Amino acid sequence: EVVATARTERTLRSALDLGVIDRAEADIRNAVDGSDIVVIATPMQAMPSVLATLDECIPERTIVTDVGSVKAYVIAAANEYLSNSVSRFVPGHPIAGTEHSGVAASHLNLFQNKSVILTPTEHTSSAAVDLITSMWRITGALVRTLDAKAHDDLLAVTSHLPHVAAYALVDFLAQHDQSELLFKLAAGGFYDFTRIASSDPLMWRDICVTNREAILQALRGYRSHIDQMVDAIQRCDNDALLEWFERSKRSRDGALERSKQKKS
Amino acid sequence: EVVATARTERTLRSALDLGVIDRAEADIRNAVDGSDIVVIATPMQAMPSVLATLDECIPERTIVTDVGSVKAYVIAAANEYLSNSVSRFVPGHPIAGTEHSGVAASHLNLFQNKSVILTPTEHTSSAAVDLITSMWRITGALVRTLDAKAHDDLLAVTSHLPHVAAYALVDFLAQHDQSELLFKLAAGGFYDFTRIASSDPLMWRDICVTNREAILQALRGYRSHIDQMVDAIQRCDNDALLEWFERSKRSRDGALERSKQKKS
Repeated sequence: EVVATARTERTLRSALDLGVIDRAEADIRNAVDGSDIVVIATPMQAMPSVLATLDECIPERTIVTDVGSVKAYVIAAANEYLSNSVSRFVPGHPIAGTEHSGVAASHLNLFQNKSVILTPTEHTSSAAVDLITSMWRITGALVRTLDAKAHDDLLAVTSHLPHVAAYALVDFLAQHDQSELLFKLAAGGFYDFTRIASSDPLMWRDICVTNREAILQALRGYRSHIDQMVDAIQRCDNDALLEWFERSKRSRDGALERSKQKKS
Repeated sequence: EVVATARTERTLRSALDLGVIDRAEADIRNAVDGSDIVVIATPMQAMPSVLATLDECIPERTIVTDVGSVKAYVIAAANEYLSNSVSRFVPGHPIAGTEHSGVAASHLNLFQNKSVILTPTEHTSSAAVDLITSMWRITGALVRTLDAKAHDDLLAVTSHLPHVAAYALVDFLAQHDQSELLFKLAAGGFYDFTRIASSDPLMWRDICVTNREAILQALRGYRSHIDQMVDAIQRCDNDALLEWFERSKRSRDGALERSKQKKS
């Protein structure tokens, strides 16, 4: 039985209508009563208060996990707010999803062949990790375990940086004095490149704030690569540019090829 | 009758095998002999020498156009190398294509509902512009006319900048000391964002070199937007970040919606 609570009745109503949940509860206490597993799916900065509330009401054997994009932050909150239940909290992050958000964007095969990363701490019981691993495997996901800091540093580069870079690009066009014509003439490549800039703004604000140091480091590294390209273009360095673009193409084509092989 | 010439026999053979052309000619003189329209489709920096060769061999009434991504550069080359035929040269740029290049990537509906920009100069005859406009309309393209410098400035922002930004991002990951793990954990969003970094390296090197000033200006503008995001993240400015991401999402969603309406 899948039971949900949410901030608004509208979300719960739509989850029921779509058949995504079996039962809706307006109060978190009623929602978690009698549960085997509680999955927290809120923007990052809402997690501390959800954890604090949960600590007061979760049943004794319930296992808690989350699907947040930043793991060190949620672990710090769990250590602060979960008293007896900290060993039953399994920090997790499914690397799946589209630019669409909300319950209407759910679909059955969302996690098929996608990575789910669990970042258990020294407090986490191995039985809890096993249960959450089994839960994700049922969805077809590939579960792996990582250190929380390693997770946050990696995701800063592969996910958070591209999102910020795409938001910055769209904003650059939107602020341009010929903005309307620019968007009109933008080719398919532009809309692909910026697809992720249509993601949920509040979710991404929270990721930026709660994984700040790793994202800043990634942004600085990216900016220095852009600076190197600026220099090469400035001096019309044909050889450097060609070598660069060839290397990038090779890296991306190779990685894409390997990721397809993994899935087939 | 579609007649082609190319640098390699392999390209010509594959164009014949795929039925993309009716006849192949190893020599440009034979290829253009008796032609109504000549379409130049080479990397930008190869265009001056092609124009110089053409000037010696094109028939008296043949109209010449090109599909290069940079227009001021090819116009300068045409003014330098075309003697009698400069009035019959119509600079053009179809804004269509994928990250795949070469004759095997051709497909019938490539230009359907896509913009083609013509940038005639004071030397270009209006009859020549009319003929090239008709040619593109047959493919289903939407033809519009722009000043060459305006075209180059606009495309620097909507197309050249995203390509360089995507190449820089892939290169940043490829040079990372955990490169292999990064590519493995990258989600679908990353591969969408960097799709254009799989484009033809030589074509993009040439675009960077021949539209240098406009691309440098776009890159500097983009970098200053990234700098502003770095500042906002650094000071954990929740309000600024949310406003930014909301504005970007609104701009992109709105532009995408309008572009879909245009096509339906």
